[in-house]
Amino acid sequence: MRLSSYAELEARFARIGAVQDAAAVLHWDAATLMPAGGAGARAEQLATLRVIAHEMLADAAMPDLFAGAAAQLDLGDWQRANLAEMRRLWLHATAVPGDLVAALSKACSAAEMRWRQARPAGDFAAMLGDLKRVLALVRDTAAAKAARLGKSPYEALLDEYEPGGSTAAIDLLFDDLARRLPALIERALERQASLPAPLPLPGPFPVEAQRRLAVALMRHLGFDFEHGRLDDSLHPFCGGTPEDVRLTTRYDEADVGRAVMGVLHETGHALYELGLPSAWRRQPVGGARGMSIHESQSLLVEMQACRSREFAEFAAPLLRQTFGGGGGEWEAENLYRLNTRVARSLIRVDADEVTYPAHVILRYRLERAMIAGDLAPDDLPAAWNEAMGALIGIVPANDRDGCLQDIHWYDGLWGYFPTYTLGAMTAAQLFAAAKAADPGIPLAIASGDFAPLLAWLRANVHAKGSRYSTAELIAQATGRPLDAAAYERHLETRYLAA
Amino acid sequence: MRLSSYAELEARFARIGAVQDAAAVLHWDAATLMPAGGAGARAEQLATLRVIAHEMLADAAMPDLFAGAAAQLDLGDWQRANLAEMRRLWLHATAVPGDLVAALSKACSAAEMRWRQARPAGDFAAMLGDLKRVLALVRDTAAAKAARLGKSPYEALLDEYEPGGSTAAIDLLFDDLARRLPALIERALERQASLPAPLPLPGPFPVEAQRRLAVALMRHLGFDFEHGRLDDSLHPFCGGTPEDVRLTTRYDEADVGRAVMGVLHETGHALYELGLPSAWRRQPVGGARGMSIHESQSLLVEMQACRSREFAEFAAPLLRQTFGGGGGEWEAENLYRLNTRVARSLIRVDADEVTYPAHVILRYRLERAMIAGDLAPDDLPAAWNEAMGALIGIVPANDRDGCLQDIHWYDGLWGYFPTYTLGAMTAAQLFAAAKAADPGIPLAIASGDFAPLLAWLRANVHAKGSRYSTAELIAQATGRPLDAAAYERHLETRYLAA
Repeated sequence: MRLSSYAELEARFARIGAVQDAAAVLHWDAATLMPAGGAGARAEQLATLRVIAHEMLADAAMPDLFAGAAAQLDLGDWQRANLAEMRRLWLHATAVPGDLVAALSKACSAAEMRWRQARPAGDFAAMLGDLKRVLALVRDTAAAKAARLGKSPYEALLDEYEPGGSTAAIDLLFDDLARRLPALIERALERQASLPAPLPLPGPFPVEAQRRLAVALMRHLGFDFEHGRLDDSLHPFCGGTPEDVRLTTRYDEADVGRAVMGVLHETGHALYELGLPSAWRRQPVGGARGMSIHESQSLLVEMQACRSREFAEFAAPLLRQTFGGGGGEWEAENLYRLNTRVARSLIRVDADEVTYPAHVILRYRLERAMIAGDLAPDDLPAAWNEAMGALIGIVPANDRDGCLQDIHWYDGLWGYFPTYTLGAMTAAQLFAAAKAADPGIPLAIASGDFAPLLAWLRANVHAKGSRYSTAELIAQATGRPLDAAAYERHLETRYLAA
Repeated sequence: MRLSSYAELEARFARIGAVQDAAAVLHWDAATLMPAGGAGARAEQLATLRVIAHEMLADAAMPDLFAGAAAQLDLGDWQRANLAEMRRLWLHATAVPGDLVAALSKACSAAEMRWRQARPAGDFAAMLGDLKRVLALVRDTAAAKAARLGKSPYEALLDEYEPGGSTAAIDLLFDDLARRLPALIERALERQASLPAPLPLPGPFPVEAQRRLAVALMRHLGFDFEHGRLDDSLHPFCGGTPEDVRLTTRYDEADVGRAVMGVLHETGHALYELGLPSAWRRQPVGGARGMSIHESQSLLVEMQACRSREFAEFAAPLLRQTFGGGGGEWEAENLYRLNTRVARSLIRVDADEVTYPAHVILRYRLERAMIAGDLAPDDLPAAWNEAMGALIGIVPANDRDGCLQDIHWYDGLWGYFPTYTLGAMTAAQLFAAAKAADPGIPLAIASGDFAPLLAWLRANVHAKGSRYSTAELIAQATGRPLDAAAYERHLETRYLAA
């Protein structure tokens, strides 16, 4: 029997999905367990799987299959949404000529390698040539994608991480926030200074005890160890596949917060993957909606739920029990204040949730200007430092702590940064909606019961996969489009209330 | 520039090799770390990679490429050998119709699942239907391969594991050995009974200490942890890829010998993989020669080198130091005698090296008779028990310890068994040749220095990959074709000498 065009597409995407799943596990292995001598062969394996998946996606039969499927009258809503996602992936994959893809990949590899030396040395001059080469190729890529997708060049880049993302919408959200942020930071710091400083937790915190604590917290959050693992890696991430989610973290015996908050963050990502609609596994519509929704899930767990006063009440006895602590440092109120410290700081990945959006808005504005040709790489350090002063109120003494700190631009990740703060805003709006729908959620969290929160997220976010656009998903879950109100209210309540 | 046919084949096989490498790492992960809930998705990933590799191998362009490459006058010896190996793999892959491959794979999966219940229950009747189905499909497969390869049906199956293997040659070796074995076993047991029994090592042996010991021994043997790992799995194996070899073992706190001898065995396999010619990676000629040579490397390390008196001298102080032992049990002579105990036993995988070949010869004869249609599955238990009585002198009380003990036949592995004993014979002949070439090898082993042995194996076996046939490889390394003389001399010296 001959398959319908749609059924043939599903079969092809299932195969592509299985190859990508295989690559995801191999990537996790490379970051966690692989001996150093395996790197060359692993790169070969991953490159081969990437080429195979790309060839399947760019196959010459695809246009006819899309035309045939579009004409089918027997498709349900999920199937139509699946078809639209398939087409989006195919457009991205076929928009850019192969030699440009190869040139960009090569330029990024070279830049990434050099960046590993230049960043600690704060040597921007050493990176300038790489940055220019990568930017030129990214601009060509953006132009090619823009022509194919019918979007502006920046939105064509953004669309890969944030499908349907619009700069007009982001500008509206970010400009408003940027106006309010300097005063908000100022007031939060003033209030913080008016209170006694929280006591630091007395370490050391043995790695094995931290690991036990992390696993216990993951279980409380609803992570199913029949479908995932927790391991160590240099850079924490959430990898693997939706039925076998591989979290990683890094332990610091002097600082228990670093590993534990990192694990809670990655668990938010993991719960999303674990909750994706299993009926649509390995189909585009069954995957995560985009990076801002993904980040909303990690930030909802880490920032909204697990830096709350309720969470501190639940976690304090667990911490005392794990590390044998007993003084006032181990009281819930002290933990809560440790988890909500604010500081003007230079490094994005170490920033608190009040100053974090300023770091992101700065990068979003600078990368848009560079893609538009309005900012030359030569002028990046000065532009960076000026924006830091205006938004956060401090200026880095060197480029190591300035425009060299993130790998994104040197590694070809342009159009990615805004998803962090879109995710933070979405997290606030979703968490507010969840609490409105089930007012018992905060009290449950205070007793370590995350089931009510997870149930709401499963039904309203996870189980929807990519059935709806990001905007539709948020509007359905929260009753209105994404705006900054819930996020600003959250920051004000947590950081400015008397 | 257009590639030559041979260069095009190399490019295609490099890609197939990378896909197979990826599958090997995923298989290792499934056996060691994967949470149970990941099994379904992993099966999907592995099946997809297998299908992709098969499609690349069976591509319609292959016959023309082989014809073109065969006509090229510019190929060197390694390239010609590579071409021959490519052609052999292609013949195997394309000899059997796709629906027969699928039917056999399905029948084996069903049989394997049922076997996991039926074996502990000793319920051969429950397996009879599966065995008949699998055998019928294996015979069809053998007939299809025989027609394509120009070999007898059994040799066509054997060729997949032992390229170029001949039943005439195996019969000659095995018949001679089978004639001598009953008397050899009898005399070894008599001599053993005339000596005081060795003292058992007093446990328990903590898992962490066993692991440390295993790692220390692996390092002594020359295993490079920059290119491999040691982990735990239910069934020990050597997996991964030649630049990232993944060994596994299983620990028993009551019995240190089980894990340690298992690790030494797998380290022999691993050293072979690590020593394959890197210039021919991911090409057929760069792979291991076949299963008998692979088994010769594990048995050379485990049986020839590491159950020797010299090894016991080196290992005894290391064992005392690891487990804090001190009495006579920990003396080298006692360890040596523990490592060389002989017993008539029912289970192949637990057998000592004197009785092991009898287990293999029994299986070889029975599987040949079943493939030829001379033995019906209904008559297997009786035939098994009769052969056990004749060759080893004991008869199993039930089929659990008889014809149900090995998964091979139920899982479609026919033509595999003889490689175990061919490997043991090859190991003895290679070890004798190595010692003749470098008489310092045993003394070096006694001091924990395996470098002289490894250097000889690297040069004479590992670095040759699949450049030569198994027969040529052995003849070049040892100066004569494989025969039973070195093996019988080894057994007599170790087990019959006064």
